[in-house]
Amino acid sequence: MARSGRRPGESGAHERIAESAREAFGEQGFDGATIRGIATRAGVDPALVHHYFGTKQRLFLSVMSLPFDAAVLQAQLLGPGPEGVGERLVRFFLGLWDAQPGVRPILTGIVRSAMTGPDAAVLLRDFLGRQGLFRLVAAIAPDQPDFRAVLVGSHLIGLAMARYIVGMEPLASADAERVIAAMGPTIERYLTGDLGGDQAS
Amino acid sequence: MARSGRRPGESGAHERIAESAREAFGEQGFDGATIRGIATRAGVDPALVHHYFGTKQRLFLSVMSLPFDAAVLQAQLLGPGPEGVGERLVRFFLGLWDAQPGVRPILTGIVRSAMTGPDAAVLLRDFLGRQGLFRLVAAIAPDQPDFRAVLVGSHLIGLAMARYIVGMEPLASADAERVIAAMGPTIERYLTGDLGGDQAS
Repeated sequence: MARSGRRPGESGAHERIAESAREAFGEQGFDGATIRGIATRAGVDPALVHHYFGTKQRLFLSVMSLPFDAAVLQAQLLGPGPEGVGERLVRFFLGLWDAQPGVRPILTGIVRSAMTGPDAAVLLRDFLGRQGLFRLVAAIAPDQPDFRAVLVGSHLIGLAMARYIVGMEPLASADAERVIAAMGPTIERYLTGDLGGDQAS
Repeated sequence: MARSGRRPGESGAHERIAESAREAFGEQGFDGATIRGIATRAGVDPALVHHYFGTKQRLFLSVMSLPFDAAVLQAQLLGPGPEGVGERLVRFFLGLWDAQPGVRPILTGIVRSAMTGPDAAVLLRDFLGRQGLFRLVAAIAPDQPDFRAVLVGSHLIGLAMARYIVGMEPLASADAERVIAAMGPTIERYLTGDLGGDQAS
């Protein structure tokens, strides 16, 4: 992707900074990682990090994006109709963690960052909004879309934590289809079903 | 609680160390907290921390225990029969976070620790086992008790993260009864229902 303000031949530094930032956020979380530390990993001056990416928050949002298009995903999940949407969403989510080697550190960094500091809620909310969970839910929920989105998001993040980050057995090594069969109906109910109780927020 | 090897008049130091350890684990997680840092907070020599509590892992398990009796809880949750057990468990879990001022830092420390280091899985598993989730599930699950326990545990931890640690709206300020109505049936299905798919592990 071409960027204004970037001279030819600097793309190596730009990519190294992005890579170092992903590593740092993945290992240390958003609050633990520093621009200085990221610059040192990338072998550049901290000023260059600021020049390319601005603040630490902007850097995080730039480099921690996931390789899917929210509109395409929405069409895939909702195209076959509402039935089975829970299983399709869990299958997509597990595939994201399992399939591409570069994705897991990004996801781990997002989850870990969300746990470690005061800026995390803003970042996570922005991330979920941008990446489409809130939009997806709004397109299908019969009511209470924000409440449903956070129920789904928190369950998926809890799953990721147990299966991929903490590695709790037997969930960590369970076959993906077993997890999809168990969680799919729950996610579907959170998306489209009756949530009981008083529906006022 | 009386302890061998402890001289009269030292109970103040013992309690200060426990308090400092809870604070440190809550803020920094298990891997981030150090015996030295905890000793400094408590105003004692690091050797005294080791003397009272042994290793950092033993210290964590000693001080991060929650104020309930697993056997009493099990009787409360299962006494009225299996129906409604999901709602009762979610109500108990929310009450744990909401009710007592000393409990939230302990729970936050447990969840945060679980995210930040390689010893976390062992600690969390030991913790859940000791505190009774695995025992509770074993007493009620028709099959696959360990898989069910981790499904329940990961969903509850995801809820805690979204509602109490990250503070994601509208879940963070939702009325407890609304959360119980939404999540109770899911937890009940994870405990006693049909999980679909192949049930072999």
